[in-house]
Amino acid sequence: MLISQLLGERYKEKPADAFLDSHVFLLRGGYIRQVASGIFSLLYPAKKISKKIEDIIREEMDRIEGQEVLFPVVLPAELWQESGRYDSVGSELLKFKDRANHDFVLGMTHEEAAVHLARSEAKSYTKYPFMIYQIQTKFRDEPRARGGLIRVREFTMKDAYSFHTSQADLESYYQRALKAYERIYERVGLKNVKVIKSDTGMMGGQTAHEFMCVSEGGEDSIVLCDHCGYSANMEVAVSTPRKNVLKEQQEIDEVLTPDVKDIETLSKFLNVEPMQTIKATVFARKDNNKPVVVFIRGDLEVNENKVTKVTRTEIYPLTDYTETDLNFGFIGPCQLDAAGIDVIFDRSLEGLTNMVCGANKKDYHLKGVSVSRDLEVTEFFDVANVTENDSCSVCGKPLTITKGIEIGNIFQLGDKYTKAMNMTYLDQNGRLQTPVMGCYGIGVGRLLACIIEDNHDEYGPIWPKSVAPWQIHICILNNNVEEIKQTGFDLYENLSKDFDVILDDRNVSAGFQFSDADLIGAPVRIIVSKRNAKNGEVEIVTRDQSTKEKVKVADVERRVRELLS
Amino acid sequence: MLISQLLGERYKEKPADAFLDSHVFLLRGGYIRQVASGIFSLLYPAKKISKKIEDIIREEMDRIEGQEVLFPVVLPAELWQESGRYDSVGSELLKFKDRANHDFVLGMTHEEAAVHLARSEAKSYTKYPFMIYQIQTKFRDEPRARGGLIRVREFTMKDAYSFHTSQADLESYYQRALKAYERIYERVGLKNVKVIKSDTGMMGGQTAHEFMCVSEGGEDSIVLCDHCGYSANMEVAVSTPRKNVLKEQQEIDEVLTPDVKDIETLSKFLNVEPMQTIKATVFARKDNNKPVVVFIRGDLEVNENKVTKVTRTEIYPLTDYTETDLNFGFIGPCQLDAAGIDVIFDRSLEGLTNMVCGANKKDYHLKGVSVSRDLEVTEFFDVANVTENDSCSVCGKPLTITKGIEIGNIFQLGDKYTKAMNMTYLDQNGRLQTPVMGCYGIGVGRLLACIIEDNHDEYGPIWPKSVAPWQIHICILNNNVEEIKQTGFDLYENLSKDFDVILDDRNVSAGFQFSDADLIGAPVRIIVSKRNAKNGEVEIVTRDQSTKEKVKVADVERRVRELLS
Repeated sequence: MLISQLLGERYKEKPADAFLDSHVFLLRGGYIRQVASGIFSLLYPAKKISKKIEDIIREEMDRIEGQEVLFPVVLPAELWQESGRYDSVGSELLKFKDRANHDFVLGMTHEEAAVHLARSEAKSYTKYPFMIYQIQTKFRDEPRARGGLIRVREFTMKDAYSFHTSQADLESYYQRALKAYERIYERVGLKNVKVIKSDTGMMGGQTAHEFMCVSEGGEDSIVLCDHCGYSANMEVAVSTPRKNVLKEQQEIDEVLTPDVKDIETLSKFLNVEPMQTIKATVFARKDNNKPVVVFIRGDLEVNENKVTKVTRTEIYPLTDYTETDLNFGFIGPCQLDAAGIDVIFDRSLEGLTNMVCGANKKDYHLKGVSVSRDLEVTEFFDVANVTENDSCSVCGKPLTITKGIEIGNIFQLGDKYTKAMNMTYLDQNGRLQTPVMGCYGIGVGRLLACIIEDNHDEYGPIWPKSVAPWQIHICILNNNVEEIKQTGFDLYENLSKDFDVILDDRNVSAGFQFSDADLIGAPVRIIVSKRNAKNGEVEIVTRDQSTKEKVKVADVERRVRELLS
Repeated sequence: MLISQLLGERYKEKPADAFLDSHVFLLRGGYIRQVASGIFSLLYPAKKISKKIEDIIREEMDRIEGQEVLFPVVLPAELWQESGRYDSVGSELLKFKDRANHDFVLGMTHEEAAVHLARSEAKSYTKYPFMIYQIQTKFRDEPRARGGLIRVREFTMKDAYSFHTSQADLESYYQRALKAYERIYERVGLKNVKVIKSDTGMMGGQTAHEFMCVSEGGEDSIVLCDHCGYSANMEVAVSTPRKNVLKEQQEIDEVLTPDVKDIETLSKFLNVEPMQTIKATVFARKDNNKPVVVFIRGDLEVNENKVTKVTRTEIYPLTDYTETDLNFGFIGPCQLDAAGIDVIFDRSLEGLTNMVCGANKKDYHLKGVSVSRDLEVTEFFDVANVTENDSCSVCGKPLTITKGIEIGNIFQLGDKYTKAMNMTYLDQNGRLQTPVMGCYGIGVGRLLACIIEDNHDEYGPIWPKSVAPWQIHICILNNNVEEIKQTGFDLYENLSKDFDVILDDRNVSAGFQFSDADLIGAPVRIIVSKRNAKNGEVEIVTRDQSTKEKVKVADVERRVRELLS
């Protein structure tokens, strides 16, 4: 490829709305262009990388006996009604009618399509186990598209579905899929990937794992124990919270706390530790908009996802209190009028003594509240975010929390879809059975972006050899000198036989060529210039700065081969 | 691949609703399954073939300097409003709203997306010419989905867009693209493809060509001159119609023709040749529903597409006459009350004498009508279907008409999209110019189906080597005999190193194995059996029946290599 012919402008200015490095470089390097919120066109370099990633994924899926198929993007609503997800999934599921007024959805995941295909083709136990996968466009009507290719609405995804005659067989295949995922991430050049337990969410099933690219730009929090290896997404992580030193029980005392509405102000005002207070966090149920009040120790935060597990319905943070009788800023568990309200107690409160909490009365708090003495709690739940003050619930050692970007997930779905959609097979004894199912997803575009997050410097991406759009970038610094130009083009012709090569054939300054080369990110750069040509040499520099040397023109091919091997 | 693990049932029964051979074999061979009308899932064998076709297309696009990109499936309505097609394209364009109530369409073609991408990246003449292409899912809300993968609603398509600074440059690139298409069809194994002039339709522009797979199952009619090579789609074909022998002019005479409503009955009733009559064919305009009456010589048929070119608006055949004053069956050009009606005369009528036509009065026709004497015609148009009685308008020799399936099209779009969407570049003199554009499409699924139409026998597809899902099919006729089984598996292991091999590992009869092998259609079949094993031999048969021979086991690899080279 001659760079003069490459479509996609590169530029120096930081794009205004881009915060993640991958987003910045994908725009500045001419890799992607936005078409609508969360919807992008990929230019040639990004498509080349994407294809290399897809080929690696395909190879690893084939290694675990995957059969590549292709499901439709446009799916009839009936399939999603069969599984029950037509109604249970929120508005991320895009619904529409065709010209004949039939209901359709845009596929955001393909469990239904997979069962639809498999149930007519696998009616005997002899067909099991099997796995089918596709690499296909998906659409998820994401309300918070952001970060370039990190959180988008339309994306290319590899999704795989395995079918088994027993849970044991599913579990053993699940382990093979997990290993295949690890190989994929290693091969595409990700250096810091964690496999963690995750929430099963809208997919259902019992067991699920996420693969997290550890990154400061990540939206997910990962809880890790360096000692025993425990790891989990914050949304499902368990821990042993730091314990309170129990104080002597006092009588309840109402104190005036004018305009003291949050824990920080309260603990300063009354000179108590936050962990000696009880905080109220209020949500509302999506189904009937009634408040859900969660009481938790003042130094902890409520995890919304964990609350959802208790309420068994979707919730949202309540910000408008006007329709309730709640005294915003002064809500407490004593004498709370709980009519029409769900109240949840976090287990951090169990047995605490001499606490401070809201008095359910404007500008007043209570002191001296003891949980077992003063409150009637039927059950305590774990609805708290894990903190670095907690200890590992497995081994008791300290936990660490880090940020990550989810780059893949795998689920043991059990019979959720096969049962709902009446998929059966005849077993050895001629009896009808319901198979169990696993599913396995990787978003290709997000993976591409994460490779940048994990491999870049201040000037641009440092593409791993396995996925680089071009392996070699030749800069001809003096394109106006015929002889120098010829040397560059000869190298280009020669190296193009075995490698993906891009050549800078423009009459522009060295600085201009180099900053473009940094954005294009090829692992090996060959610089052809008048100065080095005098000695029959060119300069070879690797994008990761590990190599910078002068090489005789005749030795270039050998040396490049070494560097790229 | 072991056939026991291949997902996709094969069966013998002819599917009830399948009329095309490709449709029949795609269903019977376990290649595709319908999900909704015109929407299919592809199983592993079809996906394998599709991928091989895509790779061939990609290679040929890269050979003409294509840069592969990826546009979104979901496109914002604004882009289609810019080009004007949001309103001009009919209900094949699927429109919907996202969760934020913004208007979107499902991409059925991507001219708008291509201009959207290119206009920000090609602002200088130095970037031109360039071509971008994608291989991506498209959706067209086709009212008459039929024929398996021949006419579908969702499909995978390669679409390419080239941009040029002059019409001459576009034309020269267009010729290169045409040659690339010819190479693609040859490489995928199509034997009978015609390049013909075609209508530009909803795409716009001046010049367009279609590639037609000649096939009895085709919906399109192709007009060919074997002498000079003239070829065109019936929708745009021109010809010299057979001439009438001019009769002596007579006086007009009204004759009673009770219940004589069509040309066949009329010509029998009055004992005149159909070409001595004037036929009326009635359409209505889609924009205002007013009738369009076309008069044409009685032996010819009106071409609706050609009429559209005259009316410059979409039309439909009028079947309900109750709202009009037209005398159905007795419409004629004399004394026709043409108020609020479009009247079109086909050029076949020019100068004709002594004709029979409707009298615009129930049960009456006129005799003795002479066109120049009795009718006031401002302009004659060519709105007739070409017939095999016509002669070539280029060389005068006879024409032939054949059926075909459109498997690709290329268009010189000119500045239709670039102008409407304000795409400009700076020329050598620093002046803003509008580039011109070409576009080039191939549907992958339809091509796959046409390969079957062109390569099959009564038992199944005969896949060309270049696209066969498996190149070699090993049948082990005695899987229950350990030694025979071992011979088969040894061959499988060995040949799998260099070839795509499928092995029948089931304990089923030879007939069962062979009929499955016919449906799977691998070019080379190796039959391992007890009988041949005695002599240390296997049987090698090619799917096209050209080879059937016994080969020593040690010679199999060499022989297979020859057959597949």
